[in-house]
Amino acid sequence: MVEHRIHNFNAGPAALPLQVLEEIQANFLNFDHSGMSITEISHRSSYFDKVINDAVERAKRLLKLDDRYHVLFLQGGASLQFAMVPMNFLSMNDSADYVNTGTWAGKAIKEAQILKKNHRVAASSEDKDFSYIPKEIKFSENAKYVHLTSNNTIKGTQYYEFPDTKGIPIVCDMSSDIFSRPLDMEKFGLIYAGAQKNLGPSGTCMVIIRQDMLDMENKDLPTMLKYSTHASKNSMYNTPPCFGIYTIDLVLKWIEEEIGGLEKMEAHNIQKADALYDYMDSGNFYRPTAEKYSRSLMNVTFRLPNEDLEKKFIAQAMEKGLGGLKGHRSVGGCRASIYNATGMESISALVQFMEAFEKENK
Amino acid sequence: MVEHRIHNFNAGPAALPLQVLEEIQANFLNFDHSGMSITEISHRSSYFDKVINDAVERAKRLLKLDDRYHVLFLQGGASLQFAMVPMNFLSMNDSADYVNTGTWAGKAIKEAQILKKNHRVAASSEDKDFSYIPKEIKFSENAKYVHLTSNNTIKGTQYYEFPDTKGIPIVCDMSSDIFSRPLDMEKFGLIYAGAQKNLGPSGTCMVIIRQDMLDMENKDLPTMLKYSTHASKNSMYNTPPCFGIYTIDLVLKWIEEEIGGLEKMEAHNIQKADALYDYMDSGNFYRPTAEKYSRSLMNVTFRLPNEDLEKKFIAQAMEKGLGGLKGHRSVGGCRASIYNATGMESISALVQFMEAFEKENK
Repeated sequence: MVEHRIHNFNAGPAALPLQVLEEIQANFLNFDHSGMSITEISHRSSYFDKVINDAVERAKRLLKLDDRYHVLFLQGGASLQFAMVPMNFLSMNDSADYVNTGTWAGKAIKEAQILKKNHRVAASSEDKDFSYIPKEIKFSENAKYVHLTSNNTIKGTQYYEFPDTKGIPIVCDMSSDIFSRPLDMEKFGLIYAGAQKNLGPSGTCMVIIRQDMLDMENKDLPTMLKYSTHASKNSMYNTPPCFGIYTIDLVLKWIEEEIGGLEKMEAHNIQKADALYDYMDSGNFYRPTAEKYSRSLMNVTFRLPNEDLEKKFIAQAMEKGLGGLKGHRSVGGCRASIYNATGMESISALVQFMEAFEKENK
Repeated sequence: MVEHRIHNFNAGPAALPLQVLEEIQANFLNFDHSGMSITEISHRSSYFDKVINDAVERAKRLLKLDDRYHVLFLQGGASLQFAMVPMNFLSMNDSADYVNTGTWAGKAIKEAQILKKNHRVAASSEDKDFSYIPKEIKFSENAKYVHLTSNNTIKGTQYYEFPDTKGIPIVCDMSSDIFSRPLDMEKFGLIYAGAQKNLGPSGTCMVIIRQDMLDMENKDLPTMLKYSTHASKNSMYNTPPCFGIYTIDLVLKWIEEEIGGLEKMEAHNIQKADALYDYMDSGNFYRPTAEKYSRSLMNVTFRLPNEDLEKKFIAQAMEKGLGGLKGHRSVGGCRASIYNATGMESISALVQFMEAFEKENK
């Protein structure tokens, strides 16, 4: 029975800023003096227009998006995007390049296969168990797009710089690091991100799509699976996930107004990750699994000397109010997911616990 | 500035039971003593397992579903189901029968067209502006399924009895009347329902699918667009819309434990609708738009003597705390959506207002 909030290191759904949760709670029975809960308000009302437009504008300001970019709120998570991307952009004679950096990139590739779309794995880090981000990749000159996964939650790797694709638009799964740092948007034709890590509750997927991508979309697709359907209706072709969009708006407001934008957000995130990696590098009890120059600022994956100690570590941490430290079920080990909303106080509490645990179990 | 809750007659997103909203609010910062918000909890945790399993079991108990039926929580709303149904169940030589009872049924038909799947409109009520439900329909003997829309929110019509399809499974869009009454499930191979009317917040779509439908599913589809993907993983192939499922669980609990099941829910709903229709039938100022034996228990659509009076009616009602009475933008007029969560006290308040308005404007 926990009566207080824990330090939440979940990989997703993950921690949200406390002040966002408190605002949702305070207004839950009567949103914006409407006499209704946010969950009861028509998506065609002026109340909701204000919410969705505010979320779009904040996203555009934070990422410095010009008018070519549309910010959409879809459903089905990144997993549906894995299929929508090749469905929309690859016709019979087209091909796309994919970079395979682990499970999620692999799932994106698999959907192109299922759809029988031409594609090529331009680079892979499978040779070293996905512990690094490939460098100096040669892309096909005629690829319609290059698909990347900016941050890999399971293996704890992340692109620090995005490759030069010589003008081929990058389509990027940013589910686990969107809004964690500034981006040079010129490289990206489409970004998608399930909300449940850095943005809000599960069930909403943010898509940022540039007009030239919309222009090359296949036309004969089911209505809900075409990006233009959603872009032309401000994400309200059908009823959107209103509660998710509302929460995302509050999270973006928190990044803008409390944190002070993406440069500051990135500085926070570097400080947090450095505290953990530096501590682990200073000894040899905890061993980060990703290669040094590909280490994720969002998911710090590490091993202890043996699996028994890992189990004990995770269980004792939970007793001390540090939750979610178990590695992904496919790889084992430990993982601290430290997305935007995880504060420095949680990192300090974790490092303190790690020090004590090491001392007792060395 | 409304400081109290209004009588909410929204068509969807729509009113939710106050006690459900209050429970969500009370536990929003610390769900089930986890030290986390329901929006921050891993879908792979025992906390969430309890939620989703409880929701599935309640749905099964309420509808008396046997083990052939799977209860799923998907994303993309009914609009994505319009496409998923023909994608999954129609191969090249198959065909399906559709009944056209208005805008939403028409959208389902349109997706079968876009997908170039054989289909036939077995009956339509377009001849009388969709003001009734077709009777004595002749279905094709070899149809793979018959698609119906059980309740039509825009024109205010509803099936009282479902047609005898001679064993052909009915696929039914029940977005606006699911759990409003008991069902003879034997007729249905698949039911789908966007949550935002009778079930919970927008962004979750409940799908109830029978095993024989899963068995005839096309195999070469994108992973997220196959029903078997979700059925085999208890709706957790990817991260599900956790907050929506949690709310649906609480709404189903309310139906089971507060209302006392679907027979009692139906009796409530009949009582509510009768109060409105009987009052309107007793005079000639308000004119229900649906034919008498097709009138919806969920969406009471009506006209006033002229459009100016309708505008005045809607505006004055809002001033008195009666919201959402405007008809759908495609047809105009007035509409009181009175789903499960709308209490008799809201109906009484509406009838009282209607009486006063009639007296002043006759």
